[in-house]
Amino acid sequence: MDYQGVLEEIARDVAPLIGSGEPAAYIPALADVDPKRFGMAVADLDGNVYGVGDWRTPFSAQSITKVFTLALVLAHGGDSVWEHVGREPSGNPFNSLVQLEYENGIPRNPFINAGALVVTDRLQTWTGDASSELLEFLRRESGNPELAFNAEVAGSESEHGDRNAALAHFMASYGNIANPVPALLDHYFWQCSIETSCADLALAARFLARHGLLADGSRLLTRSEAKQVNAVMLTCGTYDAAGEFAYRVGLPGKSGVGGGIVAVVPGQCTLCVWSPGLDERGNSVAGVAALDRFTTLTGLSVF
Amino acid sequence: MDYQGVLEEIARDVAPLIGSGEPAAYIPALADVDPKRFGMAVADLDGNVYGVGDWRTPFSAQSITKVFTLALVLAHGGDSVWEHVGREPSGNPFNSLVQLEYENGIPRNPFINAGALVVTDRLQTWTGDASSELLEFLRRESGNPELAFNAEVAGSESEHGDRNAALAHFMASYGNIANPVPALLDHYFWQCSIETSCADLALAARFLARHGLLADGSRLLTRSEAKQVNAVMLTCGTYDAAGEFAYRVGLPGKSGVGGGIVAVVPGQCTLCVWSPGLDERGNSVAGVAALDRFTTLTGLSVF
Amino acid sequence: MDYQGVLEEIARDVAPLIGSGEPAAYIPALADVDPKRFGMAVADLDGNVYGVGDWRTPFSAQSITKVFTLALVLAHGGDSVWEHVGREPSGNPFNSLVQLEYENGIPRNPFINAGALVVTDRLQTWTGDASSELLEFLRRESGNPELAFNAEVAGSESEHGDRNAALAHFMASYGNIANPVPALLDHYFWQCSIETSCADLALAARFLARHGLLADGSRLLTRSEAKQVNAVMLTCGTYDAAGEFAYRVGLPGKSGVGGGIVAVVPGQCTLCVWSPGLDERGNSVAGVAALDRFTTLTGLSVF
Amino acid sequence: MDYQGVLEEIARDVAPLIGSGEPAAYIPALADVDPKRFGMAVADLDGNVYGVGDWRTPFSAQSITKVFTLALVLAHGGDSVWEHVGREPSGNPFNSLVQLEYENGIPRNPFINAGALVVTDRLQTWTGDASSELLEFLRRESGNPELAFNAEVAGSESEHGDRNAALAHFMASYGNIANPVPALLDHYFWQCSIETSCADLALAARFLARHGLLADGSRLLTRSEAKQVNAVMLTCGTYDAAGEFAYRVGLPGKSGVGGGIVAVVPGQCTLCVWSPGLDERGNSVAGVAALDRFTTLTGLSVF
Repeated sequence: MDYQGVLEEIARDVAPLIGSGEPAAYIPALADVDPKRFGMAVADLDGNVYGVGDWRTPFSAQSITKVFTLALVLAHGGDSVWEHVGREPSGNPFNSLVQLEYENGIPRNPFINAGALVVTDRLQTWTGDASSELLEFLRRESGNPELAFNAEVAGSESEHGDRNAALAHFMASYGNIANPVPALLDHYFWQCSIETSCADLALAARFLARHGLLADGSRLLTRSEAKQVNAVMLTCGTYDAAGEFAYRVGLPGKSGVGGGIVAVVPGQCTLCVWSPGLDERGNSVAGVAALDRFTTLTGLSVF
Repeated sequence: MDYQGVLEEIARDVAPLIGSGEPAAYIPALADVDPKRFGMAVADLDGNVYGVGDWRTPFSAQSITKVFTLALVLAHGGDSVWEHVGREPSGNPFNSLVQLEYENGIPRNPFINAGALVVTDRLQTWTGDASSELLEFLRRESGNPELAFNAEVAGSESEHGDRNAALAHFMASYGNIANPVPALLDHYFWQCSIETSCADLALAARFLARHGLLADGSRLLTRSEAKQVNAVMLTCGTYDAAGEFAYRVGLPGKSGVGGGIVAVVPGQCTLCVWSPGLDERGNSVAGVAALDRFTTLTGLSVF
Repeated sequence: MDYQGVLEEIARDVAPLIGSGEPAAYIPALADVDPKRFGMAVADLDGNVYGVGDWRTPFSAQSITKVFTLALVLAHGGDSVWEHVGREPSGNPFNSLVQLEYENGIPRNPFINAGALVVTDRLQTWTGDASSELLEFLRRESGNPELAFNAEVAGSESEHGDRNAALAHFMASYGNIANPVPALLDHYFWQCSIETSCADLALAARFLARHGLLADGSRLLTRSEAKQVNAVMLTCGTYDAAGEFAYRVGLPGKSGVGGGIVAVVPGQCTLCVWSPGLDERGNSVAGVAALDRFTTLTGLSVF
Repeated sequence: MDYQGVLEEIARDVAPLIGSGEPAAYIPALADVDPKRFGMAVADLDGNVYGVGDWRTPFSAQSITKVFTLALVLAHGGDSVWEHVGREPSGNPFNSLVQLEYENGIPRNPFINAGALVVTDRLQTWTGDASSELLEFLRRESGNPELAFNAEVAGSESEHGDRNAALAHFMASYGNIANPVPALLDHYFWQCSIETSCADLALAARFLARHGLLADGSRLLTRSEAKQVNAVMLTCGTYDAAGEFAYRVGLPGKSGVGGGIVAVVPGQCTLCVWSPGLDERGNSVAGVAALDRFTTLTGLSVF
């Protein structure tokens, strides 16, 4: 498939949308990003990468890292993670806390903040250093040894971290957090702060299109586990807009408030798009439009 | 593909599960069904049907009809239905009412009861006779002119219909129901009561695998609309277990408390399985297992 | 005590507030009332009545009738009503439905709409004609045989009654409503429509200040039951502002969206104030201020 | 009034209930208390104290201290505290977190944990040492200089403090906590740990019966403020059983999970009862019964 041609057509098509929406404003490091940036990359199964726009510019990966943390936990502990977190969409953001209470401290899925804290807690328990483990994995799979934490972002997240602290303590009150809350929060915020480009993330996510195989051909996840992570991405990957995303794009995807979105065409390729302007549900306006366009142009939706 | 061979293998594999779970008990007509029944059918794009077990035995379609009602409303009114109902998973059953209140009478999706009432209200407004419209459609697409309402089931539903009446009046208080509530409830209960076999439903759902084309080659939905219905089925089709269903089965599916489940492999085939024993979330135990087995044996998951 | 003097001082003090707030707007019969009306009456234990302003003008009693319906049910069935309804404040209006669901169809207290529907259902079961029973009681205790239902108001309530219908059906789904929902709603709306003056209500409520004794000296409630009704009024009588009302006024009270409020000084007197402008929680602005002033001037708060 | 005689009659009457219910079990220091203890004291306006049973035995005051903290904050900052906390009953415990979210981090009232954390935060801001301020106040008003914190209890509370930490961080995320969360929690847990007897608490609460005047005749609260604290106690003082407590006892009261309850007869006397066995809503079984008996025997209910 002529990915390069498709990407260039998409870039032209979504140009009017670039700058729409609002960059995340809760920390200065995100609020100050130029809202006019746009990049998109596709990686095929063999590791060829195609790109357009700012596809090699690093941005704050934020919640996109939750996919990789989940995969690492599955690789270390298999199904046991599902004793600590569910696999169901979360309804809406308003419910996050009441659902935690109703369900005795078990978050609905690994991609809401509460769930990602639990998954990070698992990775911390399995490895002793959850954030380094994640960084090493991303460097290895992207082939980019320069990937790094952004200390300013991690610090800002921590300063504005009362809500995540509340979630972590609340789950700890149900016995669903094993590590000390302050250390767990640190690892969580460091993970969110990692800076990557579209190219880096499209490459790093390839194991999801390769049914669990890493870049070097070794296996991270079983075929079944890879399929399952894709299913969780499709049903839970874009905050309270998972249904809308499935409806419009029809691919497993995971977004972050930095404006990035990773998507997977199982057996075919992985994509990453980035543009900082977010819609009211926290997903990149131009990013969702670009993925929508991609599935329309290529017919590569899963539906 | 050797669908017949696959079905027979599945029937052997899930035999130990047949009779597990509990048939729906809220109305006698459902509670009295023999829990040992099991049938499964596959229809390919050309209308060839393969089956195993009780695949020609009629059962109560119940909520499976919600897929067809939605498709008919899209065919009549296009996108306008989405002003009255959302496309997001509903979180959990406990929240149904509070979410309705929080979201000003707009149900989360067309497949929870509140949403199906709104969709039926739309069909009633477009056609003047929502339940007959649905019955005619199912007869035509299944090629089975003997499909019929079950008056006893419809009557029982009505007698136990206080909760649906509550939902309808509640949405009416927000102006989101156009027809008189008692008439709307009648149409809703008649729809649920339709009796169909696995073969009937696999055939009737074919337009979802055929990108919107009906049995006679005419178009019910655009390619994009068909894809969208599949997306809503995948994210919202199995009550509060949509995430779990996507995780295990990985196909768009819609279940009913009669023990049936319809599933779609876009571009390939449609399936219907039936066994009355339900798990605690209202989905057929043997049915989900059979679909899980199907995707494992054939590799036909969307992920 | 010089009630007449106190009332006149209050009328002067609250004059600037008369017309503040907004009359209830959900039905025309209430929306059209002159917002400049203000009346207040005090009845002592012997049935002497003092008044100021529009104290003899009939207005729509609305939810104030809930106190009398509760008293009649206690008189007929004693404690058994508490198997159907609780005695706890309801938190806030947003929660009404989720609380009903959480508590299996048992409303929090007799003064929220759900609770009043249950109490009316009880009275209907005990008497066969709940609304007439209430009207007769009010006529007898007020000594005013001209008290009557307002058919226009009852009709309007019914037309805008979807939310109450939703509550009634929802409780019926839990088995907590014994009578047919449509008939129950009729009685409920007729009760709300009764027109009374401040003088009428102050007189009719006297049994609450007289420890259960009616105007003719016969006993409606035991001393303990009368005390208990007062307690429920104090903790639950003014919608979501019961805490605020206790804080400011410090008397058992029950308000209605017609702009009336009845209050009780146990062992001393009863009061009724009326002014149609409501605050955002549905209580008369000038009415609450007048009662606040009354307790300040007389020292007659219960605290 | 013959308080001594009344107390002795009560002690006989409630003897069969002593030992009913279960002592609080979440920390060892409370779980290990002998469930057969019972004491009750009455203090009149002049400081004469009458008692029965274990009325001079210290027990863990726990949430009863919330009344005194509130009074101290009102004394320091007047009405400003109500910008940070409401005055409405909280509905039910299930709602605590969702209500906080719904109401943007403003707790419903000063006597639920979230509200008491806010009030302690205020006292900390006004005084720089909230827990010492409270201890000094209780020593002075009880005339018992030996009152002290219990370090073991405070430590245990802290170890089991994840839920309170969650509440505090959650409110901090809304800007409704001014002090660092860990320090605030320490002061909060130290306050809860103070050990007092029935005699101590009955004496210390006297300003609430004396319309705001302290033991030495100086004024802590205005007459109006004292009345208001009593109103908040009546509507919110006994967890989710405030309606029930008002219904049965009819006095302003505040309970603690140590098994104590303080109650006020405005203008007359204060009471404190203690027995460790709690009902399912966290109030002393024998304690509530004893207060119920007190109002029945003396007629001193506010209703």
